[in-house]
Amino acid sequence: MKIESVDFFYLSMPVVLDIGDGSQDALLVRIRAGGLEGWGECEASPLTSIASYYTPMSHSACKPLRYSLEGRHLNNAGDIQSIADSIHENSLDLLQADHTLSGIDIALWDLLGKKLQTPVYKLLGYKKTFPKLPYASQLFGDTPEDTYAKAVKTKASGFRAVKFGWGPFGRKNLVDDVAQLNAAREGIGMDAYLMIDAGTVWREDVMEAQKRLQALKDINAYWLEEPFINGSLNPYKSLSDLSPVPLAGGEGCNNFVQARAMIDYAGIQFIQIDAGRIGGIMVAKRVADIALGKNITYVNHTFTSHLALSASLQPFAGIESALISEYPVELKSLAEEISKEKIIRDGDGYIHVPEKAGLGITVDTTALQKYLVNVEIKVNDRIIYYTPVL
Amino acid sequence: MKIESVDFFYLSMPVVLDIGDGSQDALLVRIRAGGLEGWGECEASPLTSIASYYTPMSHSACKPLRYSLEGRHLNNAGDIQSIADSIHENSLDLLQADHTLSGIDIALWDLLGKKLQTPVYKLLGYKKTFPKLPYASQLFGDTPEDTYAKAVKTKASGFRAVKFGWGPFGRKNLVDDVAQLNAAREGIGMDAYLMIDAGTVWREDVMEAQKRLQALKDINAYWLEEPFINGSLNPYKSLSDLSPVPLAGGEGCNNFVQARAMIDYAGIQFIQIDAGRIGGIMVAKRVADIALGKNITYVNHTFTSHLALSASLQPFAGIESALISEYPVELKSLAEEISKEKIIRDGDGYIHVPEKAGLGITVDTTALQKYLVNVEIKVNDRIIYYTPVL
Repeated sequence: MKIESVDFFYLSMPVVLDIGDGSQDALLVRIRAGGLEGWGECEASPLTSIASYYTPMSHSACKPLRYSLEGRHLNNAGDIQSIADSIHENSLDLLQADHTLSGIDIALWDLLGKKLQTPVYKLLGYKKTFPKLPYASQLFGDTPEDTYAKAVKTKASGFRAVKFGWGPFGRKNLVDDVAQLNAAREGIGMDAYLMIDAGTVWREDVMEAQKRLQALKDINAYWLEEPFINGSLNPYKSLSDLSPVPLAGGEGCNNFVQARAMIDYAGIQFIQIDAGRIGGIMVAKRVADIALGKNITYVNHTFTSHLALSASLQPFAGIESALISEYPVELKSLAEEISKEKIIRDGDGYIHVPEKAGLGITVDTTALQKYLVNVEIKVNDRIIYYTPVL
Repeated sequence: MKIESVDFFYLSMPVVLDIGDGSQDALLVRIRAGGLEGWGECEASPLTSIASYYTPMSHSACKPLRYSLEGRHLNNAGDIQSIADSIHENSLDLLQADHTLSGIDIALWDLLGKKLQTPVYKLLGYKKTFPKLPYASQLFGDTPEDTYAKAVKTKASGFRAVKFGWGPFGRKNLVDDVAQLNAAREGIGMDAYLMIDAGTVWREDVMEAQKRLQALKDINAYWLEEPFINGSLNPYKSLSDLSPVPLAGGEGCNNFVQARAMIDYAGIQFIQIDAGRIGGIMVAKRVADIALGKNITYVNHTFTSHLALSASLQPFAGIESALISEYPVELKSLAEEISKEKIIRDGDGYIHVPEKAGLGITVDTTALQKYLVNVEIKVNDRIIYYTPVL
């Protein structure tokens, strides 16, 4: 089938707060072909990604993404690879391209799954899926007391794994950080998996991160995530050599080779991939494959909708040993309302990748009308983008 | 002094061709403070970078770049570092940010140099500069005959070093590639430095690159540049172990840690940095420093204007051993007309970093009027960007 249309929708909460909550806006991609439509979500700056898709060409290796997509055929997984290859070649020097490609790739898989009446994980080569243990992913409270209250609430809601990150952690002092860590553990109880996300706060500073290792060990942290900026291989490796707590990272990877470098040289034990950033499901699956070969555990990164969650689960759905999965629990209403279906925990606390065709998620276009941001971009008096009808 | 205004100008040739010539459009940044103005150039997709500067906030780590810049003070190099740190923190998840930051950083250095009446290289800590031997950087011809003619012309114009890249190289077959290489060497003569740029054509395919090694050795290539996509550390390292010809790469790096990974793990002997992509002059200088410590030769990447050339020369202006510099010779009129001053070869064929304050380049705003692209971006009926008066 031939791709008939590619549409981008910028959605936003009426007020966006200056907090580390990525669910406050969204960029959805709708691709239509053969009477079907596929949906994807970019974990990216919406306006910037829209510009990257429609911008005039700068030169042969800095073309808008639309150049590599419109009018192409989609009949099998090879066609998606071919489109991604084209985008990488034609938009090599367009930095935003991989974030934009991510939503495109996801929409293409959803569309192909619907055409072939098959869930995406099967198209990726997995014969079956394994249950994932979701961790309730949330921000640290402003104070240790807030964090304690959040942890207690999370435990009460039945989660057996929890992650706290961002907020004040690493931004005040060691004493406050230790208090935050202890509050998290006390609130969630001794039996739960507890992960800590530093949100790159120490940039490349190993010494500063090192000061928290004892406290992380004391609370039996399952991992320390993103102590440093993504791709800072030497700081990661140095800290991993010192740390009694495994390191996790990789959410900032926007292509395969960056993830590969983290796997090969950063000393991490968990590689966290957001299909909405790394270029989509295909690249993410490739990372899952090499991580498995290196005995590094693949984990999805997801802090937005259940459409994004389904997309991010597909690449490692069939890997039994990759048990843990990120699960957002503080979604803004926009992100909640993107999907009609939700991926919810079963009686044992596990989640399952949808078995319906494609990503198994229906986008609730009616509910989303109120979040639609109207954008218009004019270049030399010609409108090159305006928000299409949702 | 306080930053009063930051303005972006998208300039373009009337017709942009589908060739690997990055001088067909440009994104200039003008920053005004204290009655002075500094200019920078992003080597980036103009519209996408503009969007990244003005876009509404998505969340605390995905803010528009303007958030970290407007109203800030600029009195010393530390202020530029502080602005870059703010952008990295506040725009962490905005992929395009480093390309946009690049032009901003360059304009800030130019502005600071003008305020302090000092050339930028001195602000970077260099006491003096050393002459650079420019290589005439150009595209392969469509045929070996075309390449031969280009090489002959380049030799006649007095260049002692030349680079051919992109075009058909690596895209047809081995026989054609060998013919192209031989044509280049025959045309330029045996004494000239001859570099070959594969423009990432073999992506991660070591075998395909390996087939060209003998021919590259036969023509005594000074380096083979970008056989693979930037950051593909293992393919680079594998090829470097096999290759009798040194490898060069790094132009695709858009931050320090990517360049550091290439230096530490890719087996390259030349690290090529575009100040207009890596986040500006400050980051580029940091790369130059570590390259020196690792005995890897720093080379500028420049395929656009002499404003960009001056910016890209500053970071290694004071390193005597880094002799070679990229020098664009096929500039479109737009790129030619950006700067009133030109960095031209002296009688011995060397170029010199400008000694005037800042970058030593005056932007010819009158000449550029005809290239100005009018852009207007509206979000929910509010105009968030329109092309300012140049």
